[in-house]
Amino acid sequence: MSFWEKYINRKGCVCVGLDSDITKLPKCVLDSENPIFTFNKAIIDATKNIAASYKPNYAFYASAGKKGIEALEKTLDYIPNEIPVILDVKTGDIGNTMAQYAKAWFEIWNVDSITVNPLMGYDVLKPLTNYPENFSFALALTSNPSAADYILPNGLYKTISAEIAKLSHKNFGAVVGATQIEQLAEVRKLMPETLFLVPGIGAQGGSLEAVINNAAKSKTDPRLLINSSRGIIFASPEKDFAEKAYESSLKLHNSIEELLK
Amino acid sequence: MSFWEKYINRKGCVCVGLDSDITKLPKCVLDSENPIFTFNKAIIDATKNIAASYKPNYAFYASAGKKGIEALEKTLDYIPNEIPVILDVKTGDIGNTMAQYAKAWFEIWNVDSITVNPLMGYDVLKPLTNYPENFSFALALTSNPSAADYILPNGLYKTISAEIAKLSHKNFGAVVGATQIEQLAEVRKLMPETLFLVPGIGAQGGSLEAVINNAAKSKTDPRLLINSSRGIIFASPEKDFAEKAYESSLKLHNSIEELLK
Repeated sequence: MSFWEKYINRKGCVCVGLDSDITKLPKCVLDSENPIFTFNKAIIDATKNIAASYKPNYAFYASAGKKGIEALEKTLDYIPNEIPVILDVKTGDIGNTMAQYAKAWFEIWNVDSITVNPLMGYDVLKPLTNYPENFSFALALTSNPSAADYILPNGLYKTISAEIAKLSHKNFGAVVGATQIEQLAEVRKLMPETLFLVPGIGAQGGSLEAVINNAAKSKTDPRLLINSSRGIIFASPEKDFAEKAYESSLKLHNSIEELLK
Repeated sequence: MSFWEKYINRKGCVCVGLDSDITKLPKCVLDSENPIFTFNKAIIDATKNIAASYKPNYAFYASAGKKGIEALEKTLDYIPNEIPVILDVKTGDIGNTMAQYAKAWFEIWNVDSITVNPLMGYDVLKPLTNYPENFSFALALTSNPSAADYILPNGLYKTISAEIAKLSHKNFGAVVGATQIEQLAEVRKLMPETLFLVPGIGAQGGSLEAVINNAAKSKTDPRLLINSSRGIIFASPEKDFAEKAYESSLKLHNSIEELLK
């Protein structure tokens, strides 16, 4: 099944960010053979009825060495096939080199979707068009404070958004940060059909209400995957971490549903 | 020894790009246990007296699966310690996530240097300042055709260049594409002390003469690492590939020295 089919079949907007920082795992998983995987497995078991997608960030696995990479492999295997996976790797190279990355992530790692960094222009995105079953979220308007350095000035986010809008909305989405309230409606207008991956709710201070009201395509077809990482997976540092992750994901899901009424 | 010390001690400007695409390796290495490593080992043996640095691009190893990652590990181990290594991975994330990448590349992979994508602003670069022994080349002005999409318009390359110039020139360099002839002198003026990593000579059509004349800090201290990948490593598809790689690297080295006279 393609990413787009999985996405359409799946209900809800909650993207569970598996930023499973080994230094922040609850003590109760640390004695297991692979703590990160043990942790992720419990999080997935607890949240799989809520999650519209899972988004592991590659950095947290790479920084844990071979065990971390093994944890990522096992996690990807463990996520139920009907739930689309976004590997947050912010890859951005060009031409044949980008084609190699596409092969690595889509064929070898076999993920449904990746995040990509479009700084180098269309040469980054073109090789991804050879993967009609897969999906790529290009950074358009990020949620971090220093988005003010390059993405906001001179409307670079608008230029990027306009480019993404020209691509198949079944293969290319946009990362749109929840903290950029003033620009949310504008980027939706520029990308009317595009699926948005929205980081920045919660810890980073973005407003869920602002996102729903300004960035949803419509109330019935919002075209939003709203990511929460720490807010869900580290909702509790104790043995009840999975239960609290469930509660936190359910709360986010219900808040979104309420706003979409 | 820090990257900067290795760089200063080393003579010459030739960066050998180890873009060791498994589909382009000479037939004579394909029967070995790890063809990419066998190939790289021969290339390193042949070019190590010329190379001012080696630059493996992560994509070509990731796309070859576990054998590819193993080839990269072995290659990094095999490169003589006095030659600085640049892992071309174009990483670009923020805050704690970027700190995880810095840990992955500088501590676990133990490379001297990486390439980074600064689209998300200073939040990408800040975590790298915690590694005074290491070095990061930020994309400032890339050599690919679609640099015209975002990097050239509104002088984004100038804004990025001005930011890089504010950082320690012993820890941060710039990727400056050889094909952007009109802008070479301008970016050197904006980054007077900065080490440039220059792709785009050869296959991409950049002029060596234009690079030396416009982008060198001075004839005696050019502050340039001029990358050649295909032009060196795939100089011959036959058994003499290593010998031809040596000849090609020597030719590039001599051409640079001639222009620096």
